[in-house]
Amino acid sequence: MSHAAPAPATLSPDDVASQLAVFKRGVDELIVESEMAKKLARGTPLRIKLGLDPTAPDIHLGHTVVLNKMRQMQDLGHQVIFLIGDFTTMIGDPSGRNDMRPPLTRDEIEANAKTYHAQASKVLDPGRTEIRYNSEWSEPLGAAGMIKLAARYTVARMLERDDFARRFASHTPIAIHEFLYPLMQGYDSVALRADLELGGTDQKFNLLVGRELQRDYGQEPQCILTMPLLEGIDGTEKMSKSKRNYVGITESPQSMFGKLMSISDVLMWRYYELLSFRSLDAIAALRRECDAGRNPRDAKVLLAQEIVARFHSPADAEHALAEFEARFRDGALPEDMPEMTLEGGAAGLPVAQAAKEAGLVASTSEALRLIAGRGLKVDGAVVTDKGVVLPVGATVVMQAGKRRFARVKVRLSG
Amino acid sequence: MSHAAPAPATLSPDDVASQLAVFKRGVDELIVESEMAKKLARGTPLRIKLGLDPTAPDIHLGHTVVLNKMRQMQDLGHQVIFLIGDFTTMIGDPSGRNDMRPPLTRDEIEANAKTYHAQASKVLDPGRTEIRYNSEWSEPLGAAGMIKLAARYTVARMLERDDFARRFASHTPIAIHEFLYPLMQGYDSVALRADLELGGTDQKFNLLVGRELQRDYGQEPQCILTMPLLEGIDGTEKMSKSKRNYVGITESPQSMFGKLMSISDVLMWRYYELLSFRSLDAIAALRRECDAGRNPRDAKVLLAQEIVARFHSPADAEHALAEFEARFRDGALPEDMPEMTLEGGAAGLPVAQAAKEAGLVASTSEALRLIAGRGLKVDGAVVTDKGVVLPVGATVVMQAGKRRFARVKVRLSG
Repeated sequence: MSHAAPAPATLSPDDVASQLAVFKRGVDELIVESEMAKKLARGTPLRIKLGLDPTAPDIHLGHTVVLNKMRQMQDLGHQVIFLIGDFTTMIGDPSGRNDMRPPLTRDEIEANAKTYHAQASKVLDPGRTEIRYNSEWSEPLGAAGMIKLAARYTVARMLERDDFARRFASHTPIAIHEFLYPLMQGYDSVALRADLELGGTDQKFNLLVGRELQRDYGQEPQCILTMPLLEGIDGTEKMSKSKRNYVGITESPQSMFGKLMSISDVLMWRYYELLSFRSLDAIAALRRECDAGRNPRDAKVLLAQEIVARFHSPADAEHALAEFEARFRDGALPEDMPEMTLEGGAAGLPVAQAAKEAGLVASTSEALRLIAGRGLKVDGAVVTDKGVVLPVGATVVMQAGKRRFARVKVRLSG
Repeated sequence: MSHAAPAPATLSPDDVASQLAVFKRGVDELIVESEMAKKLARGTPLRIKLGLDPTAPDIHLGHTVVLNKMRQMQDLGHQVIFLIGDFTTMIGDPSGRNDMRPPLTRDEIEANAKTYHAQASKVLDPGRTEIRYNSEWSEPLGAAGMIKLAARYTVARMLERDDFARRFASHTPIAIHEFLYPLMQGYDSVALRADLELGGTDQKFNLLVGRELQRDYGQEPQCILTMPLLEGIDGTEKMSKSKRNYVGITESPQSMFGKLMSISDVLMWRYYELLSFRSLDAIAALRRECDAGRNPRDAKVLLAQEIVARFHSPADAEHALAEFEARFRDGALPEDMPEMTLEGGAAGLPVAQAAKEAGLVASTSEALRLIAGRGLKVDGAVVTDKGVVLPVGATVVMQAGKRRFARVKVRLSG
């Protein structure tokens, strides 16, 4: 491909400063700001790399912190590259220590990448997002190329990485191939000629390796930008599927809205910074209003609506709000709730068992505790007697706690 | 290839013991003797690996210590494999730190391997020597195979290698690819299904890696046998071309004979152990004779003759002895000596300059010191005056010290 390079449309210092402000919002670290300013000043779209694990994705709001940042960059005209680390994934865990990480096939990896892209496209502009696979340049390296790559970094510097240093100090084995992975990740930046790489704070070392390798290969080193890890809705730990404190981006508008309304006021401002697309000025104004006496619940509604609108639609957001308010202000039932038919004996179905089978609680003992705490309702009435039985033929609305509902019909078993 | 395995012709315990005695003669270490005995007892020829650097060879007696051992093993029916490490040599020094080690081409490597084989064939039985190149199985590993190989060893264990440990402790950089080389060398043993690998004592760590990788790949681990490094004719440092204390195996019978006659009596017994093919019993008998009053010079003559006969011929050995004795007993001139024509001015060529140009001394100042010490002769007469000039048209025999001769003709320059 041959093309005459147009004279770069340089950016004014003011424009550079305003782009930099967008880049820096909520970041953990930007390395190096002066280099970033220089790259921006050229006025040409930056190539922004995000490395992804090609395992089956189920994106939650924690993942979108980085995606949001990239979307803001796309809106400024920059190009985002989704880099799928398929090469090492196809190898699997060569040490054989981790049976839980079987190698993925090319088809599985591509399916996962498509799903990731489809989910991420709720945040990103698909027109400025490119998907690449690192097997494209990693496989052709061959055994010789891998040796040459390994020659570009020293053992001592690799051992500076936090987790390596810790394991080495505590005599926990580090297999030698683990030293090759940061180099391959860095080589991805060389192959892509990345101007900027984004990642979580835990990725800082690897992102820096890319920077150094690019310099080694005679390229201008990429800048790196690390984003903080988002706290879960409990406000304590990092958002994570295994901690059950997450908001999945494919959850229903009602569920998403309800979870976001449940966060603390302190966490709300954190979410505003990392999840909202409102300007920092607008957020500061809102905060001043709350400080001056406005109910923080109003701000929370605005945030929840913005996020539901992003992943569903503005109409869904309105609807979720209306339903949420109706339910909690007026005690009305939600419009949609799970409906199911359960089986009981001739004497009917004990209420605790019904609550469990309807999925409102995890176990009958949890149902019994809920009853003891006056937290289970049948057709709006608090269940006070754990001996209550739902008769065969009945159709009732069961409610566990504030937000879990199910419409249950009981039929004779067998 | 499919073949019915013949029932192994097992060896008697006595035969195993006598083979083991040959194996163990002069070795630094044999790991593990009991395993070696078990392999020998099977009675099938062992596959014995020697890894070689495919750079231009100029083999000296120091190199033949290992070759001698292999020859003795061949004489017992075993198979020797010359493993040429062409793969990494074709890469060169990927760190770029060592400009002195440019990558070699396939043609250069093959030429060097042929030269090595030709020289080594003065010791080895070519019929039981196989040449292999490790690119055969290293290249097909690919980038993925290299990662998998690297997964089989830990950083901590690699850092146990002496030179790595020293460099790590003293903060001297170790490039990561240096960790891959012992693994590739070990993988050669896997690919060759080696039963035994030989090397110098300085190779012990690498040989052990091969042993462990074979076990890892489900093979019976190779035994390893390290040979001591031979001292040079000065009896102090390791024999080395750069130390100029070596005897090259392509040197003339006269030179080889003379150098071997110059070693100390103590070193002679060391050379007997590591270089002679005489039985240990025969050597012990000779030593007893010397201890009882026989001139050690007789034993030295036998050794020098054996070695000249090996690398040239028995006739050459006889001839070298006769010439050596004639020269030193009768002051006769050697039959062959370098001949050259030098250029002088009209006034002739100063004798010190002639000695230098004839290659008898490294510098004219060395020639002047030699004259001062009565060590320079022209036509058999000691030069006592450094002002002596060889006239144009003269043909003289110059002698520096005891053994350096040149026939020099002087002609008018221009």
